Amino acid sequence: AGQDTSVAEEARAYLAQFYREKGAPRAFEVRWAQVSAELQRTGTYVQTYDELSFGAKLAWRNSTRCIGRLFWNGLEVRDMRHLTDEDEILSALVEHIELATHGGNLRAMMTVLAPANRAGEGPRIWNGQLLRYAGYPNPDGTVTGDPMNVELTTKALELGWKGGARTRFDLLPLIVKLPGREPRWMEIPRRVVREVPLVHPDLPWFASLGLRWYALPAVSELLLDIGGVKYPAAPFNGWYMATEIGARNFSDPYRYNMLPVIAERLGLDIQRSSSLWRDRAQVELVRAVVHSFERAGVKIVDHHTASEDFVQFAQAEQGQGRCVHMRWSWIVPPIGGSATSVFYMDEDRHPDVTLKPNLFYQPKPWTGAA
Amino acid sequence: AGQDTSVAEEARAYLAQFYREKGAPRAFEVRWAQVSAELQRTGTYVQTYDELSFGAKLAWRNSTRCIGRLFWNGLEVRDMRHLTDEDEILSALVEHIELATHGGNLRAMMTVLAPANRAGEGPRIWNGQLLRYAGYPNPDGTVTGDPMNVELTTKALELGWKGGARTRFDLLPLIVKLPGREPRWMEIPRRVVREVPLVHPDLPWFASLGLRWYALPAVSELLLDIGGVKYPAAPFNGWYMATEIGARNFSDPYRYNMLPVIAERLGLDIQRSSSLWRDRAQVELVRAVVHSFERAGVKIVDHHTASEDFVQFAQAEQGQGRCVHMRWSWIVPPIGGSATSVFYMDEDRHPDVTLKPNLFYQPKPWTGAA
Ligand code: HEM
Ligand code: HEM
Repeated sequence: AGQDTSVAEEARAYLAQFYREKGAPRAFEVRWAQVSAELQRTGTYVQTYDELSFGAKLAWRNSTRCIGRLFWNGLEVRDMRHLTDEDEILSALVEHIELATHGGNLRAMMTVLAPANRAGEGPRIWNGQLLRYAGYPNPDGTVTGDPMNVELTTKALELGWKGGARTRFDLLPLIVKLPGREPRWMEIPRRVVREVPLVHPDLPWFASLGLRWYALPAVSELLLDIGGVKYPAAPFNGWYMATEIGARNFSDPYRYNMLPVIAERLGLDIQRSSSLWRDRAQVELVRAVVHSFERAGVKIVDHHTASEDFVQFAQAEQGQGRCVHMRWSWIVPPIGGSATSVFYMDEDRHPDVTLKPNLFYQPKPWTGAA
Repeated sequence: AGQDTSVAEEARAYLAQFYREKGAPRAFEVRWAQVSAELQRTGTYVQTYDELSFGAKLAWRNSTRCIGRLFWNGLEVRDMRHLTDEDEILSALVEHIELATHGGNLRAMMTVLAPANRAGEGPRIWNGQLLRYAGYPNPDGTVTGDPMNVELTTKALELGWKGGARTRFDLLPLIVKLPGREPRWMEIPRRVVREVPLVHPDLPWFASLGLRWYALPAVSELLLDIGGVKYPAAPFNGWYMATEIGARNFSDPYRYNMLPVIAERLGLDIQRSSSLWRDRAQVELVRAVVHSFERAGVKIVDHHTASEDFVQFAQAEQGQGRCVHMRWSWIVPPIGGSATSVFYMDEDRHPDVTLKPNLFYQPKPWTGAA
């Protein structure tokens, strides 16, 4: 009773792939008999740790917007599906931050919380990333901090968070919500949060800008979808590619918008766009990011190396007889495009096809839509 | 007899658009009666100058890979459909170079030669652009000049061209072929060719690299397709966006590959890609291009200005109730991507849809395929 055809189809297809890629295609039938019975009975099924963990790796491998996929098979998956209490979950997230940061030698890691129920409801993490800087709107329309997080900051304050010291780099608390319950939040203990102050290899004044960024990019708003089972809270991290911080977070006009400030300090003519002040400021910003992370002993990759790695990933995949799908506009880095090898990958031969398992956008958690 | 349905359909659709956009939709019926009779009789029809010229403008407006489209309505169209003699054609191309260069104040221009016949054969220009630098292969596998033009250079030499002084910047002769005849070539008179030696605003040694580029980017290998009539030779030009020269022609490893040389002169560490030597060399190269063209009084646009112009184009089009189609990967400039406004245009809302009239790739002329 109650079996959802598409769930069964997805389960079947995933399990077949699982056993095929594990090199044991004949083991599929036995497991499928089990799973289809369980689906008949309950409408869903409980994945084994191996099924979960391999599915998470495939979700990464299938992420067409990710340039870091060479390392897909090295993902460490933490099974936290059994946690039912907010405090336990919040602790598990703090533990994720600590284990994945790994003293600066970052490890690619995912922590999987309970799957969604048949109504599509499951645990949600309200933070877009586990580590996020608050954005406080000012009366004059500017924002102190990261404008991207103004809404999340408002939510946190509404839930009783007192706000931080109102610097540009106040860490937001973690917020978690379970179905049918109120959201719960906690401050992240400072000791688990590694941050890197930005300095520049050649420009001493750069340090006085007072910029810093956190070491661990851990995306916590995507839905992990494996074999017909949906996990709305499955935060994962790799390590940063320097352009993400230098050429987006600090560059974008609707983020920290630092290019004009840096260009002026560089003495560039910001009246004429043909002085290329934006491009020059951006390159110095990204240089500062790479240099600062390396100096601090925090793992980071530059966009040239990441591009080479991605080309190697594509070759390895093709060697396995698999197609490589990509969204060109995300894979090509935001600066130095034509100086990277991925720029020359043919979009038409690598279309943006969404395979499952995968990681999907889902409605903002506070909208109430499951 | 002999009417090709799709030709009639395309003719009808184009003429309807022509009169609609000209604000005289009721004039359509009379013209369509004429054209459909002509199509019945001959299988094709002769476009009026206005139909040709507006069609050429629409072909530009519909070019999804072109960032320069704000100025589509200012295209000057030269009607050279009547030329049947190679010498006359070669002279018309030389004249195009001279008129379009316009003493450095470049004008967007197109010269349309005769359409293809019913077998799909028409005049072809063998040069990918009217101005092209020769590429001479050396015994050690390197190329003197532009590696992109090695094949064209070989063809020119086979046709009896003696080659130039074997510099990196020898201009190739123009080569034209009419259906059923041998290709004919001529040297381009030096006096019509404007070139710009590259110097850098701050780096005196840059001039000693001996780099130069021509002022006029005139693409001559695309097929112009208007209302069911195909023009295989319709060279057109705008003016350069500086990144085309600095961040592609001189940067690409399979073109002039100048980044390592420039990075070394800049004293950068080219052993570590994380020094961002490629990005830094590229920015200086593009700065040199903008500066040199401006200094020489030759019209050029930087990628920030071009991006703003394109956003304005998109707004104007939407204001007219038309959709803007684009190929994001071509519209976003090859350096400083995220520092330009076009980076933030949503690919999904501006898909790469090919409307007609348009400009199309066609088989290399020397393959014999029409
Ligand atoms: C190991 C180092 C990694 C690197 C260097 C890397 C790099 C990147 C970069 C540069 C982006 C584009 C980000 C942006 O422009 O906002 C991205 C996106 C993405 N990556 Fe990775 N990544 C890594 C690990 C991972 C892991 C472990 C996963 C999942 C298990 C993953 C899945 C994704 C997904 C789903 C996106 C798209 C995110 C979105 O749409 O917001 N990546 N990655
Ligand atoms: C007026 C100044 C113009 C500017 C600044 C401009 C800019 C550009 C740029 C930067 C590209 C990409 C080139 C590349 O990466 O290889 C491009 C492509 C293109 N443009 Fe324009 N353009 C201009 C005028 C024109 C005109 C007059 C036409 C046609 C009438 C045109 C049609 C095209 C087409 C068809 C392409 C694609 C070419 C290909 O696929 O090789 N553009 N344009």
